[in-house]
Amino acid sequence: MTRMPEKGVRDLAALHELLDEVQVAHVGMFADGHPLVIPTAMVRDGDRVLIHGSTGSRWMRHLSQGADACVSVTALDGVVVARSAFESSFHYRSAVLFGRFQALDEASEDTALDVVVDRLIPGRVSELRRPTAREVAATQVLAMPIGEWSLRVSEKWPDDEEDDIAGAAWAGVVPLRTEYGAPEPAPDLRDGIEVPPSVRALAGSGGAQPSDE
Amino acid sequence: MTRMPEKGVRDLAALHELLDEVQVAHVGMFADGHPLVIPTAMVRDGDRVLIHGSTGSRWMRHLSQGADACVSVTALDGVVVARSAFESSFHYRSAVLFGRFQALDEASEDTALDVVVDRLIPGRVSELRRPTAREVAATQVLAMPIGEWSLRVSEKWPDDEEDDIAGAAWAGVVPLRTEYGAPEPAPDLRDGIEVPPSVRALAGSGGAQPSDE
Repeated sequence: MTRMPEKGVRDLAALHELLDEVQVAHVGMFADGHPLVIPTAMVRDGDRVLIHGSTGSRWMRHLSQGADACVSVTALDGVVVARSAFESSFHYRSAVLFGRFQALDEASEDTALDVVVDRLIPGRVSELRRPTAREVAATQVLAMPIGEWSLRVSEKWPDDEEDDIAGAAWAGVVPLRTEYGAPEPAPDLRDGIEVPPSVRALAGSGGAQPSDE
Repeated sequence: MTRMPEKGVRDLAALHELLDEVQVAHVGMFADGHPLVIPTAMVRDGDRVLIHGSTGSRWMRHLSQGADACVSVTALDGVVVARSAFESSFHYRSAVLFGRFQALDEASEDTALDVVVDRLIPGRVSELRRPTAREVAATQVLAMPIGEWSLRVSEKWPDDEEDDIAGAAWAGVVPLRTEYGAPEPAPDLRDGIEVPPSVRALAGSGGAQPSDE
């Protein structure tokens, strides 16, 4: 386990890594006089982030009209089990991005949606038919530049008092990770269609092995 | 895989289950004229939720002064791999709680912190010394009643068009889950101190087996 400063990491590569790893962001906004937080799939596309949804989505319309947004992306990496409750905590990486989203026009939506799909299921776009005009029209994609951001990383060992270290309590870290399980075929999948490379790669990436159950 | 309505589940038991399972909530508020989203450990204590932090925390002070809060708790349960990009999505459970937090007084903080620790690391409180008065004084605990909330659950199979079902593309679900890894002892752990029951139970609960590495 490497050591890094617990807070305030100014490392764009680490920010990108976190954004590329975590599928869901929590997007905060002020709407109808109240704070609102929406979890939504988010991907990085170079120096911007993309979210998407139905054209009927109220909160997306609110964002596309220029509302201030706060995007929070969090990975929980472990439980820090210290020798006191006070020093116990979590290993985490947490990014917050501030800015405003802008709706993409339909001409660039098609390409952007490919980026979204291939970030969430790498290689999937080439296995699928193209989206229809109706599907693209029913979807909106919003982009926010990666401009104002902060990144906090906690990955230290427990930092116990000397008295506690001399005591009988155990201390350490229990790692946490997100694992993909074995792919489960849809009930209406036709016979003879094998698990495609994109899904095999996904299911293999988190440690679990795909099976043809 | 059971079927449930995709959205708007009015089921308090399911809400409690989600709150008890997910360690980190994203708390949204409006502060200094901007939306702000903070990831923080949260536990359920009966019909309220508890968060805690340093007495110096600005955002906690803001909340304890009566700011409107929106608490989002999300579990990502799987990737829905449909036969089109349009129908591809995620299995998730997502709760949003609205309300205001209130600071606990120091007399009830001690008990509340026990609840927090034993929810995050079940059984850990009985293995630890009591918090000192100084530690309790340095910590603030905020509570919000579980009052206004919504819960959305997505756990359906891909819902593809007939033309797509007749085609060659695979469809199914790749499950996602959070796993605890094997406990890693701190470098300054004294010899002869074994992994305690609380940590063994935690590490065993996610599928991974604890080891004495």
